[in-house]
Amino acid sequence: MEIQKGNGVKEIETPNNITIKGMLGLLMANTDAKGKKVISLGIGDPTAYSCFQTTSAAQEAVVDALRSAKFNGYSPTVGLPHTRKAVAEYLSRDLPYKLQDDDVYITAGCTQAIEFAMSILAKPNANILLPRPGFPTYELCAAFRHVVPRYFDLLPEQGWEVDLSAVENLADQNTVAMVVINPGNPCGNVYTYQHLKKIAETAKRLGIIVIADEVYAHLVVGANPFVPMGVFGSVAPVLTLGSMSKRWLVPGWRLGWVVTSDPDGTLKSPMFVERLKKYSDICGAPATFIQAAVPAIFEQQEEVFFKKTINILKQTSDICYQKIKEIHCISCPSKPEGAMAFMVKLNILMMKDISDDNDFCFKLAKEESVIILPGIAVGLKNWIRIMFAVEQSSLEEALERVKSFCQRHSFQQNSFI
Amino acid sequence: MEIQKGNGVKEIETPNNITIKGMLGLLMANTDAKGKKVISLGIGDPTAYSCFQTTSAAQEAVVDALRSAKFNGYSPTVGLPHTRKAVAEYLSRDLPYKLQDDDVYITAGCTQAIEFAMSILAKPNANILLPRPGFPTYELCAAFRHVVPRYFDLLPEQGWEVDLSAVENLADQNTVAMVVINPGNPCGNVYTYQHLKKIAETAKRLGIIVIADEVYAHLVVGANPFVPMGVFGSVAPVLTLGSMSKRWLVPGWRLGWVVTSDPDGTLKSPMFVERLKKYSDICGAPATFIQAAVPAIFEQQEEVFFKKTINILKQTSDICYQKIKEIHCISCPSKPEGAMAFMVKLNILMMKDISDDNDFCFKLAKEESVIILPGIAVGLKNWIRIMFAVEQSSLEEALERVKSFCQRHSFQQNSFI
Ligand SMILES: Cc1ncc(COP(=O)(O)O)c(C=O)c1O
Ligand SMILES: Cc1ncc(COP(=O)(O)O)c(C=O)c1O
Repeated sequence: MEIQKGNGVKEIETPNNITIKGMLGLLMANTDAKGKKVISLGIGDPTAYSCFQTTSAAQEAVVDALRSAKFNGYSPTVGLPHTRKAVAEYLSRDLPYKLQDDDVYITAGCTQAIEFAMSILAKPNANILLPRPGFPTYELCAAFRHVVPRYFDLLPEQGWEVDLSAVENLADQNTVAMVVINPGNPCGNVYTYQHLKKIAETAKRLGIIVIADEVYAHLVVGANPFVPMGVFGSVAPVLTLGSMSKRWLVPGWRLGWVVTSDPDGTLKSPMFVERLKKYSDICGAPATFIQAAVPAIFEQQEEVFFKKTINILKQTSDICYQKIKEIHCISCPSKPEGAMAFMVKLNILMMKDISDDNDFCFKLAKEESVIILPGIAVGLKNWIRIMFAVEQSSLEEALERVKSFCQRHSFQQNSFI
Repeated sequence: MEIQKGNGVKEIETPNNITIKGMLGLLMANTDAKGKKVISLGIGDPTAYSCFQTTSAAQEAVVDALRSAKFNGYSPTVGLPHTRKAVAEYLSRDLPYKLQDDDVYITAGCTQAIEFAMSILAKPNANILLPRPGFPTYELCAAFRHVVPRYFDLLPEQGWEVDLSAVENLADQNTVAMVVINPGNPCGNVYTYQHLKKIAETAKRLGIIVIADEVYAHLVVGANPFVPMGVFGSVAPVLTLGSMSKRWLVPGWRLGWVVTSDPDGTLKSPMFVERLKKYSDICGAPATFIQAAVPAIFEQQEEVFFKKTINILKQTSDICYQKIKEIHCISCPSKPEGAMAFMVKLNILMMKDISDDNDFCFKLAKEESVIILPGIAVGLKNWIRIMFAVEQSSLEEALERVKSFCQRHSFQQNSFI
């Protein structure tokens, strides 16, 4: 068949950045089928491990909603009223004001929340300020929406805080928002109240919105408590993005939200609300019966379950941090404070036959069947991202393999034997 | 708080077309709280009626997948391998060739399939050919993606066939695709093999892709059998959009697909496949455990259930068609052939105090508590769209109210008493 004239398929430009999933797939393909059992410290989905299972109460709430046969139909595209209400109440527990139910737009996970935020803010010539290192979905999404990404650094020596002077320099009248991921992926940072306040004040000065990605909310293993960006919603308007994925260990359920955390109503202009609602119509809402289960799940207040997860993450992040100290030629500027991953620096000069982070990760996959994301995939060359939401013995085994890999490939190996 | 500089929220242009849901909401708000019980012939979701319930086998397949606790994690963003395979096999039953598993991208309902198709085809200056009347999500989605819609008419006197000469005239080198909805919403058309072939040949001549919205696949109540557009995939490349929503009566489950029905591989260029995959990463996939249930559900081959639905739809479409014949000042060019709705023409000249379709529908809502969508919402002024996927006695009651409404408001009412 010949497509003669307009068939534009081949002419369409696609963003050429590699996605995390794409990269992990390549690494996986590079493992040795006859080698050791593959252990992935790559992806933020610990649900394969029995220690990271959601509660049966949460699961049965969904079963009940499904079996009631009352939720097989469409929900309003902004979400079921009771689900919006439940999310508003849940998030308000940590805020100095009450969110309204109609501040909440239910999405298919935080992934769709990102897409949602990006699409409603897109306009010709718009740019958006993104953290580096960051979460590549933002970049990809911006590319599809023709929003230009501009990067500000996170500062490893300052607990991965935002380089606020860089933010000031990057913004112009076409800047629509800045993205803050806290607790942070890929850095494992948990920002202090003071730093978040400064971010909000900077956004205020620049007249931009803060997109606060809080998909890892409450997953804190260090000293800093989790403070939602919405606390500063009256300093600068905040779009809070979140989901059940991480805290409830159900990333496959695809239940998330976009919330206007904005007590002064800057984002409540009829035009903007119209835009949010229309974009909801394009997205549809996530599965109605899963939404329907949310109020019951949020009411259960699974403190024991939450604590259990945190305790495991405390242990595994500790194991990581300690083990990495033992390993020559990789280092870590600070202990992870939260989320499920953190960044580790490669000392390339100490390695005799490793050219960069990519090379490190591909050789590691091949030789040791351990999958770790090269930093370049999140914007930071010659670092690597290690997930610590991994069952303890697998994690220890993986780190042991990283250690022997590093020994083999570093100049100083003999001095350690 | 004052947002001084760049805060672009107020400047962003939002498409100003009204959505179906928006319109139905306004109509609902216009009903008389003290009036009769509201009956909606407005929205394509019959699941509130007990005669339109999905099977318990389908429901239990989802319960089993959920309770297995094996599907709480992420699926690949293109969909679970077994789900893709199941959809490929299911659709291949009606095709002269076999779809490959990787022709299938699993989406959150056909709604996200539309968004997906539109986003992967969007490029600067692109335009897309849409049917009029049509399904407004296309228009809204095009507007958000800066793809310019161009409209071709569906011809009421020819069973709502596509005006192919209009299509030829509209297309230019920036045209990326044309949309064909079959079985049709809002028209209730089911196209013949011959007409679909002509559409494909036209697309081939123009060098454009056919986006075949087959969300109502197999819901046929007339003489024409359902023929998937993919049958002509080697004439012109087809993106088939579909979902479980309508045939399985589970619109709330949000399980759909985009399929490259394209045996010659025109859409299989590495660049285009890359684009499809990357866009999948932006969308995420629908809930993993619902996906996981699809193979079991598709294997069950619920012929009895499917026939039951078709029989009800045959009856209710018949009731509609007959009743409308009795009603002065509205008429219908042909019996509905499929899907769940059809278009009915208002004879405004015969009505003494109704100015147009909008006026008709708002007064009808107010006086009779019957919700019907004005044609303008789907692009056809002075028509109305009637859903017939409604439980029989409610449908009869609603049409009786429409009849008395028309009698009251038409010039000739006395001649009918
Ligand atoms: C920073 C960040 N935002 C968003 C997401 C997507 O979350 P969800 O699983 O709810 O779609 C992730 C997932 O890992 C993430 O790390
Ligand atoms: C023509 C058409 N396309 C797509 C859709 C969306 O389908 P889904 O419920 O699977 O998202 C509908 C829903 O009514 C429709 O009528």
